[in-house]
Amino acid sequence: MSDEQDAIRVAVLGARGRMGAEVCKAVDAATDMKLVAAVDQGDALADLADAGAQVVVDFTTPDVVMDNLRWCVDQGIHTVVGTTGFTEQRLEQVRGWLADKPGVGVVIAPNFGIGAVLMMQFAARAARYFESVEIIEQHHPGKLDAPSGTATHTARLIAAARAEADLGPVPDATKDEVAGARGADIDGVRVHAVRATGLVAHQEVLFGTTGETLTIRHDSYDRVSFMPGVLLAVRAVPTRPGLTVALDPLL
Amino acid sequence: MSDEQDAIRVAVLGARGRMGAEVCKAVDAATDMKLVAAVDQGDALADLADAGAQVVVDFTTPDVVMDNLRWCVDQGIHTVVGTTGFTEQRLEQVRGWLADKPGVGVVIAPNFGIGAVLMMQFAARAARYFESVEIIEQHHPGKLDAPSGTATHTARLIAAARAEADLGPVPDATKDEVAGARGADIDGVRVHAVRATGLVAHQEVLFGTTGETLTIRHDSYDRVSFMPGVLLAVRAVPTRPGLTVALDPLL
Amino acid sequence: MSDEQDAIRVAVLGARGRMGAEVCKAVDAATDMKLVAAVDQGDALADLADAGAQVVVDFTTPDVVMDNLRWCVDQGIHTVVGTTGFTEQRLEQVRGWLADKPGVGVVIAPNFGIGAVLMMQFAARAARYFESVEIIEQHHPGKLDAPSGTATHTARLIAAARAEADLGPVPDATKDEVAGARGADIDGVRVHAVRATGLVAHQEVLFGTTGETLTIRHDSYDRVSFMPGVLLAVRAVPTRPGLTVALDPLL
Amino acid sequence: MSDEQDAIRVAVLGARGRMGAEVCKAVDAATDMKLVAAVDQGDALADLADAGAQVVVDFTTPDVVMDNLRWCVDQGIHTVVGTTGFTEQRLEQVRGWLADKPGVGVVIAPNFGIGAVLMMQFAARAARYFESVEIIEQHHPGKLDAPSGTATHTARLIAAARAEADLGPVPDATKDEVAGARGADIDGVRVHAVRATGLVAHQEVLFGTTGETLTIRHDSYDRVSFMPGVLLAVRAVPTRPGLTVALDPLL
Repeated sequence: MSDEQDAIRVAVLGARGRMGAEVCKAVDAATDMKLVAAVDQGDALADLADAGAQVVVDFTTPDVVMDNLRWCVDQGIHTVVGTTGFTEQRLEQVRGWLADKPGVGVVIAPNFGIGAVLMMQFAARAARYFESVEIIEQHHPGKLDAPSGTATHTARLIAAARAEADLGPVPDATKDEVAGARGADIDGVRVHAVRATGLVAHQEVLFGTTGETLTIRHDSYDRVSFMPGVLLAVRAVPTRPGLTVALDPLL
Repeated sequence: MSDEQDAIRVAVLGARGRMGAEVCKAVDAATDMKLVAAVDQGDALADLADAGAQVVVDFTTPDVVMDNLRWCVDQGIHTVVGTTGFTEQRLEQVRGWLADKPGVGVVIAPNFGIGAVLMMQFAARAARYFESVEIIEQHHPGKLDAPSGTATHTARLIAAARAEADLGPVPDATKDEVAGARGADIDGVRVHAVRATGLVAHQEVLFGTTGETLTIRHDSYDRVSFMPGVLLAVRAVPTRPGLTVALDPLL
Repeated sequence: MSDEQDAIRVAVLGARGRMGAEVCKAVDAATDMKLVAAVDQGDALADLADAGAQVVVDFTTPDVVMDNLRWCVDQGIHTVVGTTGFTEQRLEQVRGWLADKPGVGVVIAPNFGIGAVLMMQFAARAARYFESVEIIEQHHPGKLDAPSGTATHTARLIAAARAEADLGPVPDATKDEVAGARGADIDGVRVHAVRATGLVAHQEVLFGTTGETLTIRHDSYDRVSFMPGVLLAVRAVPTRPGLTVALDPLL
Repeated sequence: MSDEQDAIRVAVLGARGRMGAEVCKAVDAATDMKLVAAVDQGDALADLADAGAQVVVDFTTPDVVMDNLRWCVDQGIHTVVGTTGFTEQRLEQVRGWLADKPGVGVVIAPNFGIGAVLMMQFAARAARYFESVEIIEQHHPGKLDAPSGTATHTARLIAAARAEADLGPVPDATKDEVAGARGADIDGVRVHAVRATGLVAHQEVLFGTTGETLTIRHDSYDRVSFMPGVLLAVRAVPTRPGLTVALDPLL
């Protein structure tokens, strides 16, 4: 579906996994990309080079991703990584490899949802202007942790922005509380976790000041919601040498 | 502003209080009512009878309301009461007085907000059809109790409806919870209390089942929101002899 | 998964269609039902009887559904129909068949979403208490009609309830309108149709009166959301002889 | 309530108007400001200078504001203006006066609601990442224009951001529309205007892309909601010589 000349030549690693399969479909449907290889366990990495891949997208597993990345960097192939498990130590190792290959770009992101990333950016930016803020996240009842990682991360970003603006504690006159009613306290920001059948993944950040409130809400209905973020990274990585962590800098 | 013949002749007790003053304005503006007396501390109750009041609205205080009510019932004047502090014992006493005055009606309601009453009715009715339900109430940060009385009452209505339909516990796989994240447990229904400057009084009941959610939300912006409920009671009380507790039966 | 003795014996017609396949899965998963036949084009209707079906669920097409229904009624098998295209004339014909089979029940519903049905019931019930009301429906951008059939139906229910309560027109001082801003006028109720990628099927009914609003919102994320309604009808139809149109009377 | 040394000395012009009176109260309550003069029609402007005002806040009328501003600039007093009616021609005139007074700052803003300003900023910033976007604004039924000025302005900001990102038209398969259902078309962005008793001033911007939506919502309950923005401008104007139009650059 893409012009042979200009299209970005993309290969997918972990192509038979749930996310990898979605990436193959998304690349295939993008008018400015060409899917040149779909590789999974048992296939040779050399296939990627033979296919002339300019960008590799890796949605594999923590135990193989470092070998994949090292090989791609050595071959001078830009890489977008959605595989989890990147510690600061692993990131440092990748930076080391890239130091020897100044033209190569790697984007590693824990969350490719553009909406979620923007929600967090906007929340961090709005925080200093509102004396009150609370987070309400809503997920399906099969979720094991409460609050969600995204909610906790958002609360920390907000708490940091408030501290920098010398805001002091959120006003709260509560004296008589049934345990838990006021939510979890994450760095001084109250976070409420709702669980209900039918829900997928939703989060609302509510800011309040005299006479007005500002609400930033993200609703994710499907894992395909990550595809626009993956494609954005694929388009950006060839012109971003070195390591980029998280989607934020690309937005 | 109303036709002298048909208009309901209304007197207000506690007319200089915040709520009483609003009632005077609302009665005055209603095309089917006529404000015939506005009485407060220091005025004589006899003024009500002299003015030919058919319905008295009482927004006074717990220490004087029983005397007011007794006098009105004795005079055969229908009464709508918004004053708080009615225990079961007090209600029983009123029922006793009314037994001797079979034509007289008294409506005593803790909450004249029609929207809030409907929200609770709908929540109780929907409860049996959804395996999940949670309540999120949102108020200004000066509120002392969490969750609100309305939220607690709603949770109890829902819990009762679920028990009657043999629904069992709401599904929840949470294993790793920061204390408070999952809200307060009111009879098995999770209730979250949000507090933020700018908010007034809001409540959301979220029901979930496979692939769908139903949300019932009430937003109260102002104490004038109680006036339609007061007027509704004024219109209804002449044809409802005996004691009516809460606005529900009038809806 | 069900006790052989008590389980309702269910057969599905149109079992290979999108909805029919979901019904098969849902019946299979229900602990109080047993899927005894899954029939589609090319299969014989006699299979249903041979399998001892007590209830048939029909999600076929308008051109075959009347033959299916006739056959089921003749065999004394209760039927739940989700197939569309039922005119008043067709309903009359079904009533005629059922007149000769007094013990047989048929439920024909255009929408098996319990949440959607409750939303409409609550909207109709709340209508008389609020001077203002508007509907905002939100769907994916591939939808051909605007507003949705459900929104139009809801608006008509509300309009009828307002008329019965002598409410008069909704207040609206708009003098300077960019064409379309105030939505479509359905029997005097303004309806707004939002279309956006990422959305599935959502509807909000907003009621307003002095100082307060009441919002009833339904979110449907998936066609599996119809399954609880189908199962509800399967459970109810054996004890509801004659024709039942829409899910409402079962709630 | 403020330390005599450090407090900003503030005077209010139009102090007996609705907005001016609120500003007096807000300045009085701010711990880092001191209200030194409250001036209205009939009072002499010289009072402002006599009182040693460092910053003047002007909420007067279009016919007197230019004289006020000229006088303040001449006296070297920084000014924050909420009075409406500033054409490009008037702004040019103010720039001329300020050219001769390089140390003086003037902030002229049509909307001091911080939440509204942030909503517009975030909407403009998010626009390029979502193929779909619609605006739903909700106001009390006494409002004369539909959509609101803020909604129209937001739509234009979004349309400009989409054009810059070469996004093309929003997807919409609607074929069968009841007139108005799809809202007003403002530069290709659909805007829906809801009117209901009980509402004050609310706006929601809904962005959608594959599998996810992002919603930015602003609720304004009261004209006091403008006070934090006015105070922000008062604090900023002494260090912003020249003319600043709108609150945006201060955030």
